[in-house]
Amino acid sequence: MKSITPETIQSAHQRIRAYIHQTPVLESRQLNELLEASVYFKCENLQKVGAFKMRGAANAVFSLKPEERQKGVATHSSGNHAQALALAARLAGIPAYIVMPRTAPKVKVAAVQGYGAEIIFCEPTQAARESTLQEVVDRTGASFVHPYNDDRVIAGQATAAKELFEYIEEPLDVIITPVGGGGLLSGTVLAARSFSPATKVWAGEPAGADDAYRSLQEGIAQTNTTTNTIADGLLTSLGDKTFAIISKGVEQIILVSDEEIVEAMRFLWERMKLVVEPSGAVPLAAAIKEKQVLKGKRIGIIISGGNVDLGKLPF
Amino acid sequence: MKSITPETIQSAHQRIRAYIHQTPVLESRQLNELLEASVYFKCENLQKVGAFKMRGAANAVFSLKPEERQKGVATHSSGNHAQALALAARLAGIPAYIVMPRTAPKVKVAAVQGYGAEIIFCEPTQAARESTLQEVVDRTGASFVHPYNDDRVIAGQATAAKELFEYIEEPLDVIITPVGGGGLLSGTVLAARSFSPATKVWAGEPAGADDAYRSLQEGIAQTNTTTNTIADGLLTSLGDKTFAIISKGVEQIILVSDEEIVEAMRFLWERMKLVVEPSGAVPLAAAIKEKQVLKGKRIGIIISGGNVDLGKLPF
Repeated sequence: MKSITPETIQSAHQRIRAYIHQTPVLESRQLNELLEASVYFKCENLQKVGAFKMRGAANAVFSLKPEERQKGVATHSSGNHAQALALAARLAGIPAYIVMPRTAPKVKVAAVQGYGAEIIFCEPTQAARESTLQEVVDRTGASFVHPYNDDRVIAGQATAAKELFEYIEEPLDVIITPVGGGGLLSGTVLAARSFSPATKVWAGEPAGADDAYRSLQEGIAQTNTTTNTIADGLLTSLGDKTFAIISKGVEQIILVSDEEIVEAMRFLWERMKLVVEPSGAVPLAAAIKEKQVLKGKRIGIIISGGNVDLGKLPF
Repeated sequence: MKSITPETIQSAHQRIRAYIHQTPVLESRQLNELLEASVYFKCENLQKVGAFKMRGAANAVFSLKPEERQKGVATHSSGNHAQALALAARLAGIPAYIVMPRTAPKVKVAAVQGYGAEIIFCEPTQAARESTLQEVVDRTGASFVHPYNDDRVIAGQATAAKELFEYIEEPLDVIITPVGGGGLLSGTVLAARSFSPATKVWAGEPAGADDAYRSLQEGIAQTNTTTNTIADGLLTSLGDKTFAIISKGVEQIILVSDEEIVEAMRFLWERMKLVVEPSGAVPLAAAIKEKQVLKGKRIGIIISGGNVDLGKLPF
């Protein structure tokens, strides 16, 4: 594995800057009073396509060689990565082929179609996703862009934490992200190591899809055989690349219940006026759970996304 | 009437800067494509208390003389001004007395109580509000801070447009706000005149509470005898101060239906991931309605607030 250096992340940021939003960093007086801490939210729900995934997808697409570009890109994704790759491809003027489970939320399917990508539906299993994707790649010659287990994607996701570190003058004590496949978390580990070495990296993970927590405990990558959580963006298990980075660079993973996720989500909606999907509320749920330990600390939280069906809210 | 000069607005901004958020300015690629224009959203839903009202309330509270401060402040308000005055008073360490209609949204009542203000409920009529307020002022000696018909409040509200003008390098062609009592719109007129004289000022107004539209047509202030709109923050009629400023400085007022308001609100929630109350979506509804005229233009929109009961969404 070619390692991702500070220069890799720097180049990724240069490459994608024109195609992404530099998202705002928001604070809440009420939350700071509640936690007796200073919390800075990096609002990737306000990113293009409504999620940090735009960063990694743009970095992958704009890293392609000219002869690769014309054949386009392909992926399987339950949602946000699909939208991101579709938009990045559109901005590059190349085709995108997206394999999606037929159970994907309506709002996500509509968005991907809106970006002009070709959608190929499959059964909602990992095996069906992978075989369908392989057929698509064989047929079109498109480059596969994995949702998280890909150095270009990880380097792109790293730019969210990089921007937060640049925005906050005094170093953060802790930065917390959600963890599903681990692309954002790996990128955050590498960004912290590169640009804010004093900052500890934590993750929040749904108790109903706790493979990363168990992987860190065991020291070997674990998978989720079944999952049961409202945080539908965090169902996948770590990949080998993301596990390697996370197992070395993450101080702790905090498990949270769906109840805690919905409570954090409600705070973000009601008090901070942000549309955040359940997965995006997971790191705040983790911070609230660990508030004794975090007292007096400077905390960065990456709100990962805001793609939620308004017809299916948990409150 | 002492006039509000560029220096008045400048001083107000200095006075309140430590007590307000400098809210982000967001853009939407999709909306820009739809309107074939460049739209910049000043997100006052992300302001403290979830509305621009924090600016005017903070300016009023921190303009008080020491001997006035200790007796506190009082107002009548259906919501956002109430929260704002309560928080501003708390930050100044002085009492706040808020007269609220007993029909005010639960989430707004809870927020005002959370800021430690004393709430005095009254019947939901203008007459009841005014008489109840008078009793409170007589009893406590508190200074009345009107929700909009007050120079200190208008100068504070002007700082939202001022920040937007400072953020955008090239001048805007048009800036659009909602209009209810006219505090934000008056402040925007004065900020444009002071800091961006090439920018035209427009307002969006619900067709079901169209007193400002009729006032501009007639050249004399009109009132709403009945109101019928989802935009519950825009039910009040202009005051004499706000009418005087608006009648000179506003180019046009665009009436929008509740259907158009909900459609704009849905765009802001689904696509921009912003929790916006119906009143806050009114200027976007106006811009969409006038898209032929706005083609190719640079447009500023002030999203006025995000205080909405999540249990009572129109979608």
